[in-house]
Amino acid sequence: MVLVETRDERGARARVVFSTRAPVDVLALDELCTAVGWPRRPPAKVAAALAHSYLVATLHLHTIPEESSSGDYPQPLRSSLVGLARATSDHAFNATIWDVLVSPDFQGMGLGKALVERLTRALLARDIANVSLFADASVVTFYKEMGFEVDPEGIKGMFYFPPPRSPF
Amino acid sequence: MVLVETRDERGARARVVFSTRAPVDVLALDELCTAVGWPRRPPAKVAAALAHSYLVATLHLHTIPEESSSGDYPQPLRSSLVGLARATSDHAFNATIWDVLVSPDFQGMGLGKALVERLTRALLARDIANVSLFADASVVTFYKEMGFEVDPEGIKGMFYFPPPRSPF
Repeated sequence: MVLVETRDERGARARVVFSTRAPVDVLALDELCTAVGWPRRPPAKVAAALAHSYLVATLHLHTIPEESSSGDYPQPLRSSLVGLARATSDHAFNATIWDVLVSPDFQGMGLGKALVERLTRALLARDIANVSLFADASVVTFYKEMGFEVDPEGIKGMFYFPPPRSPF
Repeated sequence: MVLVETRDERGARARVVFSTRAPVDVLALDELCTAVGWPRRPPAKVAAALAHSYLVATLHLHTIPEESSSGDYPQPLRSSLVGLARATSDHAFNATIWDVLVSPDFQGMGLGKALVERLTRALLARDIANVSLFADASVVTFYKEMGFEVDPEGIKGMFYFPPPRSPF
């Protein structure tokens, strides 16, 4: 699913492509997390988290030949990960969206919104009625604009943080 | 893990046993949901949700022979489901607890608290650092008493409800 036509960092013709089936390069995701200022995470744990997510939605930048028409969808010359969101689920009733991120080079183009909306739609299409997420204060408005509601009917998001281990 | 010694509905000696490995009878769970006033759900979807939960914690009432000592743990004469909680997870970073319920006949004994605490501990023991849940307004205090925090650092629980389908 082509979201926008753009140019890659070398000025070549490129497209940002949404998918829920594209393989994810864990090291590319690690670079993306670093680029947006997230703490680093062990690659083996990231790989496990991706493997055990119900859906992993990606944005890849596909560099394409200059001569291809806008309608066809050629094999890209290069492909790089520029965005990701994933959802855990019980495959039946609920899904929770985690790790929504878009490369700083591709922010401000509506791609984060497109990513979450399309992931949400993919979940609803699989008959998952309860789509939830935990939003940092700074992105609550972003999700509200997409139709997500804070604390509907007084339901509260809660977290358990284990007490720090004694050093003794 | 025996939580309490009690009597079953016929007055026979019984124990409430916690497990994260006991098989769950979907129809028994359906009866339990009905007993606590939850809406009915299609058994096939419930079975899928259980199969795709990372951990399913159960409370079973085991009726045991009168003569067994409190120390040993005989094969029960009968076993019935009296409580359940389950967690979805990415098997790496996060887990979210859903469907916490205890039979009305066994409420007020601290079993709900024991169920959630032991499930949370089992998740932490598997190196899941981020344990979350969505609490109805009426049970926020219950979870606070167990150490769960509402909206830590301003993180908000949000839900997407699809617009109702047009009947036309």
